[in-house]
Amino acid sequence: MTDLTLYIANKNYSSWSFRPWIALTAAGIDFKEILIRFDFPAGNPDIKAISPSGQVPLLMHGDVKVWESLAIIEYAAELFPEAGLWPQAAADRAVARAISLEIVSGFRALRNACPMNFRRPKQALPFSPEQKAVVMADVARIETIWRELLAASGGPFLFGAFSAADAMYAPVVNRFSAYQLTEDKGSLAYMERMQTHPAWMKWRDAALAEPWIVPEDEA
Amino acid sequence: MTDLTLYIANKNYSSWSFRPWIALTAAGIDFKEILIRFDFPAGNPDIKAISPSGQVPLLMHGDVKVWESLAIIEYAAELFPEAGLWPQAAADRAVARAISLEIVSGFRALRNACPMNFRRPKQALPFSPEQKAVVMADVARIETIWRELLAASGGPFLFGAFSAADAMYAPVVNRFSAYQLTEDKGSLAYMERMQTHPAWMKWRDAALAEPWIVPEDEA
Repeated sequence: MTDLTLYIANKNYSSWSFRPWIALTAAGIDFKEILIRFDFPAGNPDIKAISPSGQVPLLMHGDVKVWESLAIIEYAAELFPEAGLWPQAAADRAVARAISLEIVSGFRALRNACPMNFRRPKQALPFSPEQKAVVMADVARIETIWRELLAASGGPFLFGAFSAADAMYAPVVNRFSAYQLTEDKGSLAYMERMQTHPAWMKWRDAALAEPWIVPEDEA
Repeated sequence: MTDLTLYIANKNYSSWSFRPWIALTAAGIDFKEILIRFDFPAGNPDIKAISPSGQVPLLMHGDVKVWESLAIIEYAAELFPEAGLWPQAAADRAVARAISLEIVSGFRALRNACPMNFRRPKQALPFSPEQKAVVMADVARIETIWRELLAASGGPFLFGAFSAADAMYAPVVNRFSAYQLTEDKGSLAYMERMQTHPAWMKWRDAALAEPWIVPEDEA
Protein backbone atom coordinates (compact mmCIF):
# COMPACT_ATOMS: atom_id res chain seq x y z
CA MET A 1 0.00 0.00 0.00
CA THR A 2 1.23 3.42 -0.87
CA ASP A 3 0.02 6.74 0.37
CA LEU A 4 -0.49 8.43 -2.98
CA THR A 5 -3.51 10.53 -3.88
CA LEU A 6 -4.05 11.74 -7.42
CA TYR A 7 -6.40 14.67 -7.90
CA ILE A 8 -7.99 14.66 -11.34
CA ALA A 9 -10.83 16.40 -13.17
CA ASN A 10 -13.62 15.08 -15.42
CA LYS A 11 -12.56 11.81 -17.02
CA ASN A 12 -14.46 12.65 -20.18
CA TYR A 13 -12.48 15.81 -20.83
CA SER A 14 -9.33 16.16 -18.71
CA SER A 15 -6.52 15.00 -20.96
CA TRP A 16 -3.85 16.16 -18.51
CA SER A 17 -5.47 14.06 -15.77
CA PHE A 18 -5.70 11.02 -18.04
CA ARG A 19 -1.95 10.94 -18.73
CA PRO A 20 -0.58 10.33 -15.20
CA TRP A 21 -3.67 8.27 -14.27
CA ILE A 22 -3.16 5.76 -17.08
CA ALA A 23 0.63 5.75 -16.59
CA LEU A 24 0.33 4.84 -12.92
CA THR A 25 -2.61 2.47 -13.41
CA ALA A 26 -1.00 0.56 -16.27
CA ALA A 27 2.19 0.25 -14.20
CA GLY A 28 0.22 -1.32 -11.34
CA ILE A 29 0.93 1.51 -8.91
CA ASP A 30 -1.64 1.77 -6.15
CA PHE A 31 -3.15 5.22 -5.56
CA LYS A 32 -6.28 6.86 -4.30
CA GLU A 33 -8.05 9.19 -6.72
CA ILE A 34 -10.11 12.29 -6.02
CA LEU A 35 -12.09 13.83 -8.85
CA ILE A 36 -12.77 17.58 -8.68
CA ARG A 37 -14.97 18.38 -11.59
CA PHE A 38 -14.34 21.27 -13.92
CA ASP A 39 -16.50 24.27 -13.25
CA PHE A 40 -16.51 26.35 -16.40
CA PRO A 41 -15.86 29.12 -17.09
CA ALA A 42 -14.56 30.36 -13.74
CA GLY A 43 -12.48 27.39 -12.70
CA ASN A 44 -13.07 25.28 -9.64
CA PRO A 45 -12.13 26.95 -6.34
CA ASP A 46 -11.50 23.53 -4.80
CA ILE A 47 -8.70 22.95 -7.32
CA LYS A 48 -7.24 26.39 -6.78
CA ALA A 49 -7.22 25.76 -3.03
CA ILE A 50 -5.10 22.62 -3.16
CA SER A 51 -2.91 22.96 -6.25
CA PRO A 52 0.09 25.35 -6.33
CA SER A 53 -0.52 25.98 -10.04
CA GLY A 54 -4.29 26.13 -9.58
CA GLN A 55 -4.67 23.15 -11.89
CA VAL A 56 -5.12 19.41 -11.88
CA PRO A 57 -3.64 16.87 -11.98
CA LEU A 58 -1.95 16.99 -8.61
CA LEU A 59 -0.27 14.11 -6.79
CA MET A 60 -0.07 14.19 -3.01
CA HIS A 61 2.37 11.93 -1.19
CA GLY A 62 2.51 12.81 2.49
CA ASP A 63 3.61 16.45 2.57
CA VAL A 64 4.83 16.41 -1.01
CA LYS A 65 2.66 18.00 -3.70
CA VAL A 66 3.58 17.32 -7.31
CA TRP A 67 1.78 19.05 -10.16
CA GLU A 68 2.14 18.89 -13.96
CA SER A 69 1.42 15.50 -15.57
CA LEU A 70 4.97 14.69 -16.57
CA ALA A 71 6.41 15.72 -13.20
CA ILE A 72 3.94 13.35 -11.53
CA ILE A 73 5.11 10.54 -13.80
CA GLU A 74 8.79 11.33 -13.07
CA TYR A 75 8.08 11.34 -9.33
CA ALA A 76 6.32 7.97 -9.52
CA ALA A 77 9.12 6.58 -11.67
CA GLU A 78 11.65 7.52 -9.00
CA LEU A 79 9.46 6.13 -6.21
CA PHE A 80 8.79 2.84 -8.03
CA PRO A 81 11.82 2.14 -10.23
CA GLU A 82 10.68 -1.47 -10.68
CA ALA A 83 7.36 -0.37 -12.22
CA GLY A 84 8.98 0.35 -15.58
CA LEU A 85 7.28 3.67 -16.22
CA TRP A 86 10.13 4.67 -18.53
CA PRO A 87 11.90 2.35 -21.01
CA GLN A 88 14.96 0.59 -19.57
CA ALA A 89 17.59 1.66 -22.12
CA ALA A 90 18.96 5.17 -21.60
CA ALA A 91 18.64 6.01 -25.30
CA ASP A 92 15.01 4.86 -25.38
CA ARG A 93 14.29 6.77 -22.19
CA ALA A 94 15.71 9.95 -23.77
CA VAL A 95 13.48 9.60 -26.82
CA ALA A 96 10.48 8.73 -24.63
CA ARG A 97 11.01 11.95 -22.70
CA ALA A 98 11.53 13.98 -25.88
CA ILE A 99 8.27 12.81 -27.45
CA SER A 100 6.47 13.26 -24.13
CA LEU A 101 7.70 16.86 -24.05
CA GLU A 102 6.53 17.40 -27.63
CA ILE A 103 3.06 16.70 -26.23
CA VAL A 104 3.54 19.25 -23.44
CA SER A 105 4.99 21.98 -25.66
CA GLY A 106 3.29 21.41 -28.97
CA PHE A 107 0.44 20.10 -31.07
CA ARG A 108 -1.59 23.18 -30.13
CA ALA A 109 -3.65 23.12 -33.33
CA LEU A 110 -4.80 19.56 -32.69
CA ARG A 111 -5.33 20.10 -28.98
CA ASN A 112 -7.32 23.30 -29.45
CA ALA A 113 -9.48 22.08 -32.33
CA CYS A 114 -10.17 18.58 -31.02
CA PRO A 115 -10.68 18.35 -27.24
CA MET A 116 -10.45 14.89 -25.72
CA ASN A 117 -14.01 13.56 -25.45
CA PHE A 118 -14.92 9.92 -24.91
CA ARG A 119 -18.65 10.52 -25.23
CA ARG A 120 -18.53 12.23 -28.60
CA PRO A 121 -19.99 10.28 -31.56
CA LYS A 122 -17.09 9.53 -33.94
CA GLN A 123 -17.28 12.18 -36.62
CA ALA A 124 -14.90 14.40 -38.58
CA LEU A 125 -15.04 18.14 -37.95
CA PRO A 126 -15.79 20.58 -40.79
CA PHE A 127 -12.36 22.24 -40.75
CA SER A 128 -11.60 25.34 -42.75
CA PRO A 129 -8.68 24.74 -45.18
CA GLU A 130 -6.34 26.76 -42.91
CA GLN A 131 -7.39 24.86 -39.82
CA LYS A 132 -7.14 21.54 -41.59
CA ALA A 133 -3.58 22.33 -42.69
CA VAL A 134 -2.31 23.01 -39.18
CA VAL A 135 -4.23 20.17 -37.52
CA MET A 136 -3.07 17.67 -40.13
CA ALA A 137 0.53 18.85 -39.74
CA ASP A 138 0.24 17.87 -36.06
CA VAL A 139 -1.33 14.55 -37.03
CA ALA A 140 1.49 13.87 -39.50
CA ARG A 141 4.21 14.53 -36.91
CA ILE A 142 2.48 12.25 -34.40
CA GLU A 143 2.08 9.47 -36.95
CA THR A 144 5.77 9.75 -37.85
CA ILE A 145 6.66 9.33 -34.16
CA TRP A 146 4.37 6.33 -33.78
CA ARG A 147 5.50 4.66 -37.02
CA GLU A 148 9.23 5.00 -36.31
CA LEU A 149 9.01 3.86 -32.68
CA LEU A 150 6.68 0.92 -33.36
CA ALA A 151 8.98 -0.20 -36.18
CA ALA A 152 12.05 0.06 -33.97
CA SER A 153 10.53 -1.66 -30.92
CA GLY A 154 8.31 -4.15 -32.70
CA GLY A 155 5.39 -2.97 -30.51
CA PRO A 156 2.82 -3.57 -29.21
CA PHE A 157 3.46 -0.16 -27.62
CA LEU A 158 5.86 2.64 -28.56
CA PHE A 159 8.83 1.16 -26.70
CA GLY A 160 7.58 -2.44 -26.54
CA ALA A 161 5.85 -2.66 -23.18
CA PHE A 162 3.37 0.08 -22.22
CA SER A 163 5.33 3.09 -20.89
CA ALA A 164 4.88 6.70 -19.86
CA ALA A 165 5.31 7.67 -23.51
CA ASP A 166 2.13 5.79 -24.44
CA ALA A 167 0.40 7.44 -21.50
CA MET A 168 1.39 10.88 -22.76
CA TYR A 169 -0.12 10.08 -26.18
CA ALA A 170 -3.28 8.41 -24.80
CA PRO A 171 -5.49 11.53 -25.17
CA VAL A 172 -4.24 11.88 -28.75
CA VAL A 173 -5.45 8.35 -29.43
CA ASN A 174 -8.92 9.42 -28.29
CA ARG A 175 -8.76 12.52 -30.50
CA PHE A 176 -7.67 10.60 -33.60
CA SER A 177 -10.58 8.25 -33.01
CA ALA A 178 -13.30 10.74 -32.01
CA TYR A 179 -12.56 13.15 -34.87
CA GLN A 180 -11.56 10.44 -37.39
CA LEU A 181 -8.19 11.97 -38.11
CA THR A 182 -6.40 8.99 -39.61
CA GLU A 183 -6.90 6.05 -41.92
CA ASP A 184 -3.34 4.80 -41.54
CA LYS A 185 -3.38 1.08 -40.78
CA GLY A 186 -0.41 1.21 -38.44
CA SER A 187 -1.90 4.10 -36.48
CA LEU A 188 -5.30 2.41 -36.29
CA ALA A 189 -3.74 -0.82 -35.03
CA TYR A 190 -1.78 1.03 -32.33
CA MET A 191 -4.92 2.93 -31.35
CA GLU A 192 -6.83 -0.34 -31.07
CA ARG A 193 -4.16 -1.79 -28.76
CA MET A 194 -4.31 1.36 -26.62
CA GLN A 195 -8.10 1.38 -26.50
CA THR A 196 -8.29 -2.25 -25.38
CA HIS A 197 -5.70 -1.88 -22.63
CA PRO A 198 -7.44 -2.63 -19.30
CA ALA A 199 -6.39 0.74 -17.84
CA TRP A 200 -7.83 2.56 -20.85
CA MET A 201 -11.15 0.71 -20.62
CA LYS A 202 -11.43 1.45 -16.91
CA TRP A 203 -10.98 5.20 -17.47
CA ARG A 204 -13.25 5.21 -20.54
CA ASP A 205 -16.11 3.45 -18.73
CA ALA A 206 -15.93 6.01 -15.93
CA ALA A 207 -15.81 8.86 -18.49
CA LEU A 208 -18.91 7.55 -20.26
CA ALA A 209 -20.77 7.38 -16.95
CA GLU A 210 -20.17 11.05 -16.12
CA PRO A 211 -23.24 13.30 -16.48
CA TRP A 212 -21.41 16.63 -16.72
CA ILE A 213 -21.24 18.62 -19.97
CA VAL A 214 -18.48 21.18 -20.54
CA PRO A 215 -19.70 23.28 -23.50
CA GLU A 216 -16.20 24.61 -24.27
CA ASP A 217 -14.95 21.09 -24.90
CA GLU A 218 -17.81 20.03 -27.18
CA ALA A 219 -16.35 20.74 -30.62
CA MET B 1 36.12 14.82 -22.17
CA THR B 2 32.64 13.88 -23.27
CA ASP B 3 31.34 13.41 -26.75
CA LEU B 4 28.30 15.67 -26.47
CA THR B 5 27.26 18.13 -29.14
CA LEU B 6 24.50 20.65 -28.50
CA TYR B 7 22.86 22.22 -31.52
CA ILE B 8 21.42 25.62 -30.74
CA ALA B 9 20.04 28.65 -32.60
CA ASN B 10 20.67 32.40 -32.25
CA LYS B 11 21.83 33.18 -28.73
CA ASN B 12 20.02 36.51 -28.80
CA TYR B 13 16.62 34.95 -29.40
CA SER B 14 16.53 31.19 -28.86
CA SER B 15 15.10 30.76 -25.38
CA TRP B 16 14.74 27.00 -25.80
CA SER B 17 18.44 26.75 -26.71
CA PHE B 18 19.46 28.90 -23.75
CA ARG B 19 17.83 26.58 -21.19
CA PRO B 20 19.87 23.37 -21.73
CA TRP B 21 22.97 25.39 -22.64
CA ILE B 22 23.05 27.27 -19.33
CA ALA B 23 22.04 24.14 -17.37
CA LEU B 24 24.95 22.12 -18.77
CA THR B 25 27.42 25.01 -18.69
CA ALA B 26 26.62 25.98 -15.09
CA ALA B 27 26.97 22.32 -14.08
CA GLY B 28 30.45 22.18 -15.60
CA ILE B 29 29.51 19.60 -18.24
CA ASP B 30 31.79 19.68 -21.24
CA PHE B 31 30.09 19.84 -24.65
CA LYS B 32 30.68 21.08 -28.15
CA GLU B 33 28.17 23.58 -29.49
CA ILE B 34 26.98 24.12 -33.04
CA LEU B 35 24.87 27.18 -33.81
CA ILE B 36 22.44 26.95 -36.71
CA ARG B 37 20.92 30.36 -37.08
CA PHE B 38 17.21 30.94 -37.45
CA ASP B 39 16.15 31.62 -41.00
CA PHE B 40 12.78 33.33 -40.80
CA PRO B 41 10.11 32.84 -41.90
CA ALA B 42 10.68 29.51 -43.63
CA GLY B 43 12.74 27.76 -40.98
CA ASN B 44 16.28 26.56 -41.44
CA PRO B 45 16.63 23.44 -43.61
CA ASP B 46 19.83 22.51 -41.77
CA ILE B 47 17.85 22.17 -38.53
CA LYS B 48 15.11 20.17 -40.21
CA ALA B 49 17.74 17.82 -41.62
CA ILE B 50 19.26 16.85 -38.28
CA SER B 51 16.47 17.17 -35.71
CA PRO B 52 13.62 14.62 -35.50
CA SER B 53 11.22 17.39 -34.43
CA GLY B 54 12.66 19.86 -36.93
CA GLN B 55 13.69 22.13 -34.08
CA VAL B 56 16.63 23.09 -31.92
CA PRO B 57 17.91 22.47 -29.35
CA LEU B 58 19.20 18.99 -30.12
CA LEU B 59 21.82 17.06 -28.16
CA MET B 60 23.87 14.43 -29.95
CA HIS B 61 25.77 11.81 -27.98
CA GLY B 62 27.19 9.17 -30.28
CA ASP B 63 24.17 7.69 -32.05
CA VAL B 64 21.70 9.13 -29.55
CA LYS B 65 19.72 12.22 -30.53
CA VAL B 66 17.81 14.01 -27.77
CA TRP B 67 15.49 16.91 -28.55
CA GLU B 68 13.30 19.15 -26.35
CA SER B 69 15.14 21.27 -23.76
CA LEU B 70 13.94 19.43 -20.69
CA ALA B 71 14.63 15.98 -22.19
CA ILE B 72 18.19 17.13 -22.90
CA ILE B 73 18.57 18.21 -19.28
CA GLU B 74 17.14 14.87 -18.03
CA TYR B 75 19.54 12.97 -20.28
CA ALA B 76 22.53 14.95 -19.02
CA ALA B 77 21.34 14.52 -15.42
CA GLU B 78 21.33 10.73 -15.90
CA LEU B 79 24.73 10.77 -17.63
CA PHE B 80 26.34 12.98 -14.98
CA PRO B 81 24.55 12.30 -11.70
CA GLU B 82 27.36 14.02 -9.79
CA ALA B 83 26.79 17.32 -11.67
CA GLY B 84 23.76 18.20 -9.53
CA LEU B 85 21.52 19.32 -12.37
CA TRP B 86 18.47 18.54 -10.22
CA PRO B 87 18.14 19.23 -6.47
CA GLN B 88 19.23 16.31 -4.26
CA ALA B 89 16.07 15.84 -2.18
CA ALA B 90 13.30 13.91 -3.94
CA ALA B 91 10.63 16.41 -2.85
CA ASP B 92 12.68 19.35 -4.16
CA ARG B 93 13.36 17.49 -7.40
CA ALA B 94 9.62 16.93 -7.85
CA VAL B 95 8.87 20.64 -7.42
CA ALA B 96 11.81 21.57 -9.66
CA ARG B 97 10.36 19.39 -12.42
CA ALA B 98 6.84 20.74 -11.85
CA ILE B 99 7.90 24.38 -12.22
CA SER B 100 10.11 23.46 -15.19
CA LEU B 101 7.07 21.91 -16.85
CA GLU B 102 5.00 25.02 -16.12
CA ILE B 103 7.52 26.80 -18.36
CA VAL B 104 7.08 24.21 -21.12
CA SER B 105 3.28 24.12 -20.97
CA GLY B 106 2.36 27.63 -19.93
CA PHE B 107 3.11 31.33 -19.71
CA ARG B 108 2.06 31.72 -23.34
CA ALA B 109 0.97 35.33 -22.91
CA LEU B 110 4.36 36.36 -21.57
CA ARG B 111 6.30 34.25 -24.06
CA ASN B 112 4.34 35.50 -27.06
CA ALA B 113 4.31 39.17 -26.10
CA CYS B 114 7.89 39.41 -24.86
CA PRO B 115 10.42 37.37 -26.86
CA MET B 116 13.79 36.78 -25.23
CA ASN B 117 16.14 39.46 -26.55
CA PHE B 118 19.47 40.37 -24.97
CA ARG B 119 20.12 43.25 -27.35
CA ARG B 120 16.86 45.08 -26.74
CA PRO B 121 17.09 48.40 -24.85
CA LYS B 122 15.29 47.93 -21.53
CA GLN B 123 11.84 49.38 -22.05
CA ALA B 124 8.24 48.52 -21.15
CA LEU B 125 5.89 47.59 -23.98
CA PRO B 126 2.71 49.61 -24.62
CA PHE B 127 0.33 46.76 -23.71
CA SER B 128 -3.39 46.99 -24.29
CA PRO B 129 -5.36 46.50 -21.05
CA GLU B 130 -6.36 42.97 -22.12
CA GLN B 131 -2.78 42.04 -23.01
CA LYS B 132 -1.43 43.56 -19.82
CA ALA B 133 -3.87 41.52 -17.74
CA VAL B 134 -2.78 38.16 -19.18
CA VAL B 135 0.93 38.99 -19.26
CA MET B 136 0.88 40.24 -15.68
CA ALA B 137 -1.00 37.11 -14.56
CA ASP B 138 1.95 35.09 -15.90
CA VAL B 139 4.39 37.44 -14.16
CA ALA B 140 2.49 37.08 -10.88
CA ARG B 141 2.57 33.27 -11.00
CA ILE B 142 6.30 33.28 -11.77
CA GLU B 143 7.02 35.70 -8.92
CA THR B 144 5.04 33.50 -6.53
CA ILE B 145 7.17 30.52 -7.56
CA TRP B 146 10.40 32.46 -7.11
CA ARG B 147 9.39 34.01 -3.80
CA GLU B 148 8.26 30.73 -2.21
CA LEU B 149 11.28 28.72 -3.37
CA LEU B 150 13.85 31.37 -2.48
CA ALA B 151 12.27 31.70 0.98
CA ALA B 152 12.31 27.92 1.49
CA SER B 153 15.85 27.35 0.22
CA GLY B 154 17.44 30.57 1.42
CA GLY B 155 18.84 31.10 -2.10
CA PRO B 156 20.92 32.25 -3.82
CA PHE B 157 19.09 30.18 -6.47
CA LEU B 158 15.64 28.56 -6.43
CA PHE B 159 16.81 25.39 -4.67
CA GLY B 160 19.99 26.82 -3.13
CA ALA B 161 22.68 25.95 -5.65
CA PHE B 162 22.04 26.70 -9.33
CA SER B 163 19.92 23.89 -10.80
CA ALA B 164 18.00 22.95 -13.92
CA ALA B 165 15.02 24.86 -12.53
CA ASP B 166 16.95 28.14 -12.66
CA ALA B 167 18.02 27.21 -16.19
CA MET B 168 14.40 26.73 -17.24
CA TYR B 169 13.55 30.22 -15.91
CA ALA B 170 16.65 31.93 -17.33
CA PRO B 171 14.89 33.29 -20.44
CA VAL B 172 12.13 34.65 -18.19
CA VAL B 173 14.78 36.58 -16.26
CA ASN B 174 15.83 38.21 -19.51
CA ARG B 175 12.20 39.03 -20.36
CA PHE B 176 11.48 40.55 -16.96
CA SER B 177 14.55 42.71 -17.38
CA ALA B 178 14.20 43.65 -21.07
CA TYR B 179 10.51 44.56 -20.81
CA GLN B 180 10.71 45.92 -17.21
CA LEU B 181 8.01 43.65 -15.91
CA THR B 182 8.75 43.80 -12.19
CA GLU B 183 9.77 46.17 -9.43
CA ASP B 184 9.69 43.49 -6.75
CA LYS B 185 12.90 43.63 -4.73
CA GLY B 186 13.14 39.87 -4.26
CA SER B 187 12.65 39.23 -7.96
CA LEU B 188 15.16 41.90 -8.94
CA ALA B 189 17.75 40.47 -6.54
CA TYR B 190 17.28 36.95 -7.93
CA MET B 191 17.51 38.32 -11.48
CA GLU B 192 20.75 40.09 -10.58
CA ARG B 193 22.24 36.84 -9.25
CA MET B 194 21.19 35.05 -12.43
CA GLN B 195 22.53 37.79 -14.69
CA THR B 196 25.94 37.79 -12.99
CA HIS B 197 26.37 34.01 -13.09
CA PRO B 198 29.44 33.26 -15.25
CA ALA B 199 27.43 30.98 -17.55
CA TRP B 200 24.83 33.70 -18.08
CA MET B 201 27.47 36.31 -18.91
CA LYS B 202 29.18 33.99 -21.39
CA TRP B 203 25.90 33.40 -23.28
CA ARG B 204 24.90 37.08 -23.10
CA ASP B 205 28.23 38.31 -24.49
CA ALA B 206 27.89 35.93 -27.43
CA ALA B 207 24.27 37.03 -27.96
CA LEU B 208 25.28 40.70 -28.03
CA ALA B 209 27.97 39.96 -30.63
CA GLU B 210 25.51 38.36 -33.08
CA PRO B 211 24.70 40.51 -36.12
CA TRP B 212 21.44 38.77 -37.10
CA ILE B 213 18.06 40.44 -36.71
CA VAL B 214 14.89 38.33 -36.51
CA PRO B 215 12.03 40.82 -37.12
CA GLU B 216 9.40 38.51 -35.59
CA ASP B 217 11.22 38.57 -32.27
CA GLU B 218 11.68 42.35 -32.10
CA ALA B 219 8.65 43.39 -30.01
